[in-house]
Amino acid sequence: MAAAAPPPPPSPAPSAISEDLLPTSHNLFSRIRLAKIADVPHIHKLIHQMAVFERLTHLFSATESSLSSTLFPPNPPQPFTSFTVFLLEVSRTPFVSIDQINPSFDPVYKTVMIDVPINDPEAELFKSGAGGGGNDIVVAGFVLFFPNYSTFLAKPGFYIEDIFVRECYRRKGFGKMLLSAVAAQAAKMGYGRVEWVVLDWNVNAIKFYEEMGAEVMKEWRVCRLTGEALQTFANVNI
Amino acid sequence: MAAAAPPPPPSPAPSAISEDLLPTSHNLFSRIRLAKIADVPHIHKLIHQMAVFERLTHLFSATESSLSSTLFPPNPPQPFTSFTVFLLEVSRTPFVSIDQINPSFDPVYKTVMIDVPINDPEAELFKSGAGGGGNDIVVAGFVLFFPNYSTFLAKPGFYIEDIFVRECYRRKGFGKMLLSAVAAQAAKMGYGRVEWVVLDWNVNAIKFYEEMGAEVMKEWRVCRLTGEALQTFANVNI
Repeated sequence: MAAAAPPPPPSPAPSAISEDLLPTSHNLFSRIRLAKIADVPHIHKLIHQMAVFERLTHLFSATESSLSSTLFPPNPPQPFTSFTVFLLEVSRTPFVSIDQINPSFDPVYKTVMIDVPINDPEAELFKSGAGGGGNDIVVAGFVLFFPNYSTFLAKPGFYIEDIFVRECYRRKGFGKMLLSAVAAQAAKMGYGRVEWVVLDWNVNAIKFYEEMGAEVMKEWRVCRLTGEALQTFANVNI
Repeated sequence: MAAAAPPPPPSPAPSAISEDLLPTSHNLFSRIRLAKIADVPHIHKLIHQMAVFERLTHLFSATESSLSSTLFPPNPPQPFTSFTVFLLEVSRTPFVSIDQINPSFDPVYKTVMIDVPINDPEAELFKSGAGGGGNDIVVAGFVLFFPNYSTFLAKPGFYIEDIFVRECYRRKGFGKMLLSAVAAQAAKMGYGRVEWVVLDWNVNAIKFYEEMGAEVMKEWRVCRLTGEALQTFANVNI
């Protein structure tokens, strides 16, 4: 895992020419860190935005309370052995060096150059106070993953359930940064695979995943037993 | 979970007619229990048979040692919170009532009526000594599953990685029994879903799963990052 300290801001552009005539560039500082229970309100809002984006709000029933109790139970298991959330934060100013946020994972820092400052209409709503390291930090996305297992390899892997970047921060490499963080963690732990699912008509996503080295398994279909069909098994005499 | 004691054998068929003329039936007693580390040699052989059946032996690299260390680590987590194996055992004689095998899961017993005694050419190889309850017990199959998570439901579920019944015990309801045991455990724990994957050309399996109440998600494709493509992320500067 690349655990680079936040790089220093680049030198300012030469000021001999009027700034109006120059294509200026701006820094957007970003960080990936392990989420904690104080981040749940933000995680809840991100998941809801994802449901809106996927037009699946009728399937959305998560609450802050249910997320807290299932993602951050009392006596939590070791990091990465159960449901795990990496949070993506961005800031217009560099992250202040702080004490280790979580000893199990060194945050990943990256500085992205952008031509136009991003207008984030929800900056106040997603203001991040949980991670430390600055007053200007906004939550921009997340990835939720957990261990899976390959019997052929006799090795664990990671399954990525969700990966999401808020709209105004898309097409800046943050999706790749989140996916890479999970892949790097898997490789670091000696795990055998990282898996996830994609909609078959989402050709842009498929192209992106294949460019990252992933294989799309065309023959497999996901089966799901849920709702009442699952409940009928609760008292069934097998 | 149905935790019935082994049912008594049914009354013998009327003996007024010569047995040669009667379509006699035989009892095959079966049990599903949590696997333990002593079962690893049998689990290893079952996984290998599955690889042969799927013509995927080139992907098979599990050893008894690697299975033991990943499925039954020191300081094992609570049952059902990580990788879990249910073992299917069969016996020609009733299972002897024994002390609880594992307090986390009451074994499931079922008696299957068969017309012709099953000739198991590998009975000696799969003789089960680990579970207790009789001298005539043979390992016939397994299911391996672990928790997954739905962000929309904010609930865990189970993902079934493998379900396998040895050839001579197929078409007797044991696959359904194994799948039902996982579904029943999920329902009992208040979990939201049970999921697994199936090959799109395996129409018999798809029909069977749909009859059990599962939905086949036609639009989703599994993406996998593995091998060298995954290793490249180990030291990548994200």
